[in-house]
Amino acid sequence: MSRPRSDKSDSILSSLGKRTEAPPISWLMNEALKHPNLISLADGITDNKTIPVPETREILSQLLASPSKAQSVLQYGTAAGEERLREATTSRLARLDSESKDDYPADNLIITNGSQQFLYMLTEALCDPGDIIIVEDPTYFVYLSIMQSHGIEARGVRMESTGLSIQDLEQKLNALAESGQLHRVKFLYSVTYFQNPTGITTSYEKKIKALELLRSFEKKAGHPIYYVEDAAYRELSFPEFSPPASALKHREYRNRLIYTSTYSKPYATGIRVGFGYLPKPLHTVVMRIKGNHDFGTAHLLQQILVAAIESDKYEAHLAKIGRSYHRKAMAMLKAIQQYFPKSVQIIPPNGGLCIWAILPQRIKTGPKSGFFKESLRQGVLFVPGEFAFANDPTRPKPGSTMRLSYGSATKSQIQEGIKILGSLLHDRIGN
Amino acid sequence: MSRPRSDKSDSILSSLGKRTEAPPISWLMNEALKHPNLISLADGITDNKTIPVPETREILSQLLASPSKAQSVLQYGTAAGEERLREATTSRLARLDSESKDDYPADNLIITNGSQQFLYMLTEALCDPGDIIIVEDPTYFVYLSIMQSHGIEARGVRMESTGLSIQDLEQKLNALAESGQLHRVKFLYSVTYFQNPTGITTSYEKKIKALELLRSFEKKAGHPIYYVEDAAYRELSFPEFSPPASALKHREYRNRLIYTSTYSKPYATGIRVGFGYLPKPLHTVVMRIKGNHDFGTAHLLQQILVAAIESDKYEAHLAKIGRSYHRKAMAMLKAIQQYFPKSVQIIPPNGGLCIWAILPQRIKTGPKSGFFKESLRQGVLFVPGEFAFANDPTRPKPGSTMRLSYGSATKSQIQEGIKILGSLLHDRIGN
Repeated sequence: MSRPRSDKSDSILSSLGKRTEAPPISWLMNEALKHPNLISLADGITDNKTIPVPETREILSQLLASPSKAQSVLQYGTAAGEERLREATTSRLARLDSESKDDYPADNLIITNGSQQFLYMLTEALCDPGDIIIVEDPTYFVYLSIMQSHGIEARGVRMESTGLSIQDLEQKLNALAESGQLHRVKFLYSVTYFQNPTGITTSYEKKIKALELLRSFEKKAGHPIYYVEDAAYRELSFPEFSPPASALKHREYRNRLIYTSTYSKPYATGIRVGFGYLPKPLHTVVMRIKGNHDFGTAHLLQQILVAAIESDKYEAHLAKIGRSYHRKAMAMLKAIQQYFPKSVQIIPPNGGLCIWAILPQRIKTGPKSGFFKESLRQGVLFVPGEFAFANDPTRPKPGSTMRLSYGSATKSQIQEGIKILGSLLHDRIGN
Repeated sequence: MSRPRSDKSDSILSSLGKRTEAPPISWLMNEALKHPNLISLADGITDNKTIPVPETREILSQLLASPSKAQSVLQYGTAAGEERLREATTSRLARLDSESKDDYPADNLIITNGSQQFLYMLTEALCDPGDIIIVEDPTYFVYLSIMQSHGIEARGVRMESTGLSIQDLEQKLNALAESGQLHRVKFLYSVTYFQNPTGITTSYEKKIKALELLRSFEKKAGHPIYYVEDAAYRELSFPEFSPPASALKHREYRNRLIYTSTYSKPYATGIRVGFGYLPKPLHTVVMRIKGNHDFGTAHLLQQILVAAIESDKYEAHLAKIGRSYHRKAMAMLKAIQQYFPKSVQIIPPNGGLCIWAILPQRIKTGPKSGFFKESLRQGVLFVPGEFAFANDPTRPKPGSTMRLSYGSATKSQIQEGIKILGSLLHDRIGN
């Protein structure tokens, strides 16, 4: 949250070095460390209990069984990533979108260290300080740290139950056009499945409408305006829900769509592998940047995922975690119904790892608020919603929301944590 | 080598996106792919045969044996890296420098995706476009791509058999001071052990002299000037050689020294783990940048190395590869003696993966030279030495050198490859 302590060596830092702030997540982790018996409804990490241990053990023992195969598994790969993983990934994408594999060429894919690294490199490739990215209000807060570090401005677009408001997007674009700032707008960043933090899934129709709208402003912008579809939570769907297709399905806008997702969240976060799918000219640029970052994601990790996907262990695991997170989400919703005042608004999720709570506006939830501090004192940590709102100079930051995660907490911790928060809310709101 | 093909989507790229060129290494790899029966004396990768397969199999089977341990191994780590690996790494560093562990606090260490990612983030933290980094002539060519991408200028310092020329360094610094450019100089980048590409090891005395010299220019620069000691090849020492201490040993300059190395080259390149050790205020900045890149290197990979180091498997492996690369280096030197004209200068290495050959100036070795093309036609690939020279506007780029690697080639390939090159050299030089 604070800048590095100023000392004489600060004067040598680059603009980026001077700008880059500590991410809110490290502040949250420090709070957690200071309170060891804390119930954490804050961390977006996955559930230790769902980590595919026997599956991974079996895969590794097979990968390393023959010396010659093991040698290649433990050797460098390439900057774009292992070809079999790129093929397996684009095949999966085509299948999820009910399209033919031929329409999803693996040449447009790059394997990265989680989707986070892809987002970082994409931002490097497209944005200079002073540029603008349109984000959702609220959005994935770790991406906001990347933007802040690169000196990028944000414009926030209101969220509805089916995704971002097209009307509000149009207003924001018009305002940017009128003030002559449209040339600074590089892309719209949208977390389209079980959004972190709201749990909202954007409908296919909205994605296409957003793409249409962006295209209609391109002439004034003087360059393409991309739509970045962050599908990191796409595979954390609850059993009964059928997530919509990605915007990749729509051929007309394919050259304006950048899609990213990850295997870390659904499979195992200790195996950091994500990917980005993007139009070829941009793919070339991002791949060069990847070459400079690290010449390619660790080959061993990629080979684990190839084996998991090709053997259907991955698919079976998805079904298992879908059921497990669904049970925990239901436990949290039930506890909320039981313990929270009725004036607290909740969006029930269909997947992902968190539930968004909107409190009456007079209840502030920020890290310095009485409510946050009292929750912490009583042993419950949540993510203050304001972390997930960009610094958009054109609107005040909403301050009365909470992100409640059921990712790593147990059912009884969820129940206990929600009960404590509920009692604090009743004290402040009444019924 | 070439910029991305210009099309309408180029106009949206950032300055970095527009600047970033394809690295020479991808061009080399393409050449290799076009000639499948090639003898490659070009790649700096390690020998498949030396990869520690049984060791890694045993480690992984132990790491994943107990479900609760396995769950933590397969879960997220932290941005700074696994504490046990940081402790094991700083203990090793202290031991290599014959110093007490207490003088090498693990808090100054960050674990990264190879030393490459560390160098990238350090450059981001310290350098703006137009800044200057002083490099060795020649230097590690992949680092030059990072500099190019960030719009950084280079000044090259002549190399001697004991490392960079202090006299030349002083001249370059004086010239920069006289032309009022010293404020643009952020650090000196030096590959201190078995340098890629020359194989030269910098003496401890020279490192300290360089640090003294840099400090004497700080007042004029208006900020610290760091010395970046890249020790990536330090542990690839031949059996009889005792590498000198790192500059970390000298307490007086500790706050100006940045040290980086890697476990990828000595252990397994498919397990991408490196590290950087740096003064605390800079450590904080680089750790924040790491949080934005990927929140931390894959935990599974770090745990493999913890186990390898703590069980002494790592140490035993180092002794093995030291002997193996020594045998191959000797085979290459013997072949060179037998087949190369006497006018070719060779620096015999004490470790690392390559031998540097300096030809008479009239023989050009660049990628477009007749000599390079004819070598390729006859089935031998080497790295044209000019790739390893920075674009220093103050001197012409030397064009008559070759980097010859014995990393991945077999002994008979080495012999055959050197014989072919020797015959081509005799045609051009005579004896």
